[in-house]
Amino acid sequence: MSESETPVTYADIAAAAERLAPVAVVTPLLSSPTLDALFGARILVKAEMLQRTGSFKVRGAYNRLVRLNTDERRCGVVAFSSGNHAQAVAWVAQTLAMPAAIVMPRRAPTIKAERTRGYGAEVILFDGDRVAMEAYARLLAAERQATLVPPFDDPRIIAGQGTVGREIAAQARVLGATPDLVLVPTSGGGLVGGTALALAHDCPGARVYAVEPEGFDDLACSLAAGTRLANAPGAHSICDALLVPSPGEITFAINSRLLAGSIAVADRHAERAMAVLFNHLKIVAEPGGAIALGAVLAGAINVNGKTVVIVASGGNVDAAMFARILSEHTVV
Amino acid sequence: MSESETPVTYADIAAAAERLAPVAVVTPLLSSPTLDALFGARILVKAEMLQRTGSFKVRGAYNRLVRLNTDERRCGVVAFSSGNHAQAVAWVAQTLAMPAAIVMPRRAPTIKAERTRGYGAEVILFDGDRVAMEAYARLLAAERQATLVPPFDDPRIIAGQGTVGREIAAQARVLGATPDLVLVPTSGGGLVGGTALALAHDCPGARVYAVEPEGFDDLACSLAAGTRLANAPGAHSICDALLVPSPGEITFAINSRLLAGSIAVADRHAERAMAVLFNHLKIVAEPGGAIALGAVLAGAINVNGKTVVIVASGGNVDAAMFARILSEHTVV
Repeated sequence: MSESETPVTYADIAAAAERLAPVAVVTPLLSSPTLDALFGARILVKAEMLQRTGSFKVRGAYNRLVRLNTDERRCGVVAFSSGNHAQAVAWVAQTLAMPAAIVMPRRAPTIKAERTRGYGAEVILFDGDRVAMEAYARLLAAERQATLVPPFDDPRIIAGQGTVGREIAAQARVLGATPDLVLVPTSGGGLVGGTALALAHDCPGARVYAVEPEGFDDLACSLAAGTRLANAPGAHSICDALLVPSPGEITFAINSRLLAGSIAVADRHAERAMAVLFNHLKIVAEPGGAIALGAVLAGAINVNGKTVVIVASGGNVDAAMFARILSEHTVV
Repeated sequence: MSESETPVTYADIAAAAERLAPVAVVTPLLSSPTLDALFGARILVKAEMLQRTGSFKVRGAYNRLVRLNTDERRCGVVAFSSGNHAQAVAWVAQTLAMPAAIVMPRRAPTIKAERTRGYGAEVILFDGDRVAMEAYARLLAAERQATLVPPFDDPRIIAGQGTVGREIAAQARVLGATPDLVLVPTSGGGLVGGTALALAHDCPGARVYAVEPEGFDDLACSLAAGTRLANAPGAHSICDALLVPSPGEITFAINSRLLAGSIAVADRHAERAMAVLFNHLKIVAEPGGAIALGAVLAGAINVNGKTVVIVASGGNVDAAMFARILSEHTVV
């Protein structure tokens, strides 16, 4: 598929960046000489937990919602999400003064449900699996004539997330750095797809990898098979933000063309990455947000002598879990 | 004292900002709608834990060391510090390829001594009080013909820290915000003094307050008395970065002219502020780094309806202490 056939173009990402300028944080690209020495590489961390609502999700949500017309805004929006997309849609809806109803799994972290309510949204806790939850959200949206805001498989959402890649390229340029590798936490593939699209334009030498939790490496399996496959049921991971069962249709079309690969990482490496980010960069990552650094800690990719951009995608983690992880993982 | 009599001018701060541009992070000015709602104010947090070496101290240290000549660089530098200035001087010396010896109190947090060594400095752990430690550092510097880098009472150090104020003014302007109050963690007074000098020029309507730990409110007492006073001995605080016994001579001349006041805050409010910054902004603050937000949490200053800039000055805290504080302080 050539870019002309892609439903998301670089121009869409540039336009999204302009729309986001007044509301989103241009999150810093952080580094630490200690981290660099530890890995024998130049490590640059894109700190998206510092984004509004604590994750990158606000980028896509805003780019989607800001273009709804007056009638659509009055009817409001419905979303289904394990948490970060939920908070982002709730906050954006509040900012744009439209009603929002969010369907969330009952097992989602308490902090994510509380925050979503805190942003003025109606939260509906749901007990079934993801397919049932999505079906319920669709029904609810139809009933209310509200707009359903999907978490990733939507060109405007992907273009919004792609602004992360555009910022990485610009910020690396200021530092005099040329990224060799870019590692991106991945669930449905909107963030990594948008980022890869932006970097293919702004930084074409960079190899972009998705990073997924073990047992939820549907993108790795799908890339290997050349077609979209779902995860086997029954797996568990603490990376609650990354548990989507299979790649999106639009995102897979982008990712199968642009990614260098996808790396599966065990939870313990994501936890250790959280402790490293705390210790060396003073930032709070949730497990799924830290997993791209986990891939490096696990030795799953050779970074020696390279310039490596790590996207740290979110920081919405309960204090009790964070305290446990700090206590269990001693970091140099 | 008029600005013409001050040993630090706005031009010195502007020049420092230019020198720092290639090495320092322009740390973000973060906000959260939840925090704003909690306090009925617009809260903007200047996240200096994201600065190189985890605190603002690198700004002053670099502005001081980069102007040493070839001979001075060969002889290297000596500093005495409880930790954040130590790390900053060590990192800057390493960056500029000069030797550094740092005298630190034996009770300093492990992480601070380890990091200082990690940046290639010789660390000398010292058992006496601060006066004895400073005398020892002076002797060591004289012996080695090295340059002594004081932690705050130096015009170039103050000008470097003042770049924090300059960035606050510029970043607030981008957000369309006009700061009413600016709260700054304070020990010897270099950060608050430099920040107040910059804001007197860039944002003259802002009232700048120092925030000190209870028992170490030497600046508050000195401001009240109109002359420099020392803390009574025997006090304790977990704010290890803020335990200087009395204001500096140069810094007090600036601060007595420019500050709206100084607020003393109990440790428990600094701890609660750490939990709030973790929860709402996803940043890691050390006790002394969080104390300015602690002043707001303690209700020590009326922020209702105001635009309030909180400087969060550092994040070098041991994991065990951070985990304990997260466990003990439940935050909304």
